[in-house]
Amino acid sequence: MADPALIAVDWGTTALRGALLAADGTVLAEHAAPRGLLSVPPGGWGAAFEAEFGAWLAAHPGLVCLMAGMVGSRQGWAEAAYCRCPAGLADVAAQLCWVQPGRVAIVPGLCCEADGVPDVMRGEETQVFGALQALGLQVATLVLPGTHSKWVQVQGGRISHFSTHMTGECYALLRSQSILARMLPADDGAWVPEAFDAGVARAFDAGGLLHHLFSVRSLALFGRDDGPALASRLSGLLIGEELRAQALPAGAPVAVLGSPALAGRYQRALAQRGHPVTAVQADAGWMGLLAVARAAGLLAAPGPAEADALPAGTLRP
Amino acid sequence: MADPALIAVDWGTTALRGALLAADGTVLAEHAAPRGLLSVPPGGWGAAFEAEFGAWLAAHPGLVCLMAGMVGSRQGWAEAAYCRCPAGLADVAAQLCWVQPGRVAIVPGLCCEADGVPDVMRGEETQVFGALQALGLQVATLVLPGTHSKWVQVQGGRISHFSTHMTGECYALLRSQSILARMLPADDGAWVPEAFDAGVARAFDAGGLLHHLFSVRSLALFGRDDGPALASRLSGLLIGEELRAQALPAGAPVAVLGSPALAGRYQRALAQRGHPVTAVQADAGWMGLLAVARAAGLLAAPGPAEADALPAGTLRP
Repeated sequence: MADPALIAVDWGTTALRGALLAADGTVLAEHAAPRGLLSVPPGGWGAAFEAEFGAWLAAHPGLVCLMAGMVGSRQGWAEAAYCRCPAGLADVAAQLCWVQPGRVAIVPGLCCEADGVPDVMRGEETQVFGALQALGLQVATLVLPGTHSKWVQVQGGRISHFSTHMTGECYALLRSQSILARMLPADDGAWVPEAFDAGVARAFDAGGLLHHLFSVRSLALFGRDDGPALASRLSGLLIGEELRAQALPAGAPVAVLGSPALAGRYQRALAQRGHPVTAVQADAGWMGLLAVARAAGLLAAPGPAEADALPAGTLRP
Repeated sequence: MADPALIAVDWGTTALRGALLAADGTVLAEHAAPRGLLSVPPGGWGAAFEAEFGAWLAAHPGLVCLMAGMVGSRQGWAEAAYCRCPAGLADVAAQLCWVQPGRVAIVPGLCCEADGVPDVMRGEETQVFGALQALGLQVATLVLPGTHSKWVQVQGGRISHFSTHMTGECYALLRSQSILARMLPADDGAWVPEAFDAGVARAFDAGGLLHHLFSVRSLALFGRDDGPALASRLSGLLIGEELRAQALPAGAPVAVLGSPALAGRYQRALAQRGHPVTAVQADAGWMGLLAVARAAGLLAAPGPAEADALPAGTLRP
């Protein structure tokens, strides 16, 4: 087994995930727990960390732990000041927020600003850095679908700009709390790709999202679509609106990072609009944390046996 | 006192309102009750009607009652088939749905279709007809703000097209159920017109509604706006998006029908975008039902004393 080089942690609002990583990205061990920001009491972060990851650190003295996600928010372990865009690995590595000096650090989130309005991310930046390494790209447009989707522009290997879209949250609210919920089955039921496609296409027509949403009700009133089709249409209307708002150049390629089910919907919508799509696995975050650690000179020295097996470009101590 | 000529009823989802009207529109008596569609049991419509309006009909034998609103929906007293656009007074009058022949009728709602997607209204059509009479217009663009706002195009005195926007419902959901709710005061608190204006203006910038909504959170994170300002901004973002989606010609006049508080926000947003605005009182519905009754030849004969006082153009029996 390769020597462990880093403990990588994604600590979010409702859960945490961690991995013991070798310098080449091999996952040597993994750990997950439903212990997110919401379930850690004030002042309880150090104890929670020891309970979850103390054993790994005890077994591998000298190893560093890098954490990404909401753990660095105002309600987290410590508020890691946002790193301003444009931001690359070196920028983020220079702004690590050490909660246990030399042992545990939080990777800062990013902020950017357009027309006097700020935007923020925490955690997605490490996934983007990992994806860029995996894809070997320096220039890219990426989307990270989710409750709050992120669209990310990369120039010269750095995140130049990004924007957040409340697509997933609006879908959940409309799906379960609005008047449209009465037209829809309790669970999503059968996925109806044609209805999703119709929703995506409709989002690009004149009328606006607030109007197009109502079509879920009016189509039901006239019996033109059944519940599963309407749920798929609603998803298409929202993802289509998110896509429309990007005003992407014709044929621009897009990389999609996320869980297969949701990423698949984005890939389908992008394909309908004529955009070549690359799918990136959701564990790009581990690659990203490893890249940040390397940029910060924090990777543990490989043992003599592993040293020869390191990929080219790996920083050597 | 003028003789009563019509019993006009607006019977909606959660409440009903009725008026005893003279032929010139004078309101001789009014009645309201929290007895909407949701609180009338199946088969209980006739009894509910007698309990609310039986006394008026008994006191004025031969009077007709016209009803508008969700009382004509599938879950209402009887399903009044939608009247297709373009639709004017004569079209609606020819499609009255009699639930008690010669005594009580429901005014049908309207439907229209664009790009294969239908849209519907029930009740707003009578408000529009009333407003057209009050304004003396044959060509107009009107907006009826609400949970589901309606934008209505009128050509030659008939409603040629309309579209529904889920603006009010989305505001309520985002205001109270979304992650944005944490940034906002429990009630709307102080109205901050500058923040509302900023939201309206922002809605016209590139980025799309799903992105602009997130600014309520990001501005709060950076402490740039307080809760009341953010609530006003959210309102401006949604009303601004509704307005943007109309793609109105520059300087096009718009009539706003609704309660003063909400209509005032729409008037302010329209003024910011350079549109002359006419405000119409919310009781345009009584004028509209009177106009439908007149078009259907249903107005009770005025007594000899009142006959001379009728306005010009009133249909005489």
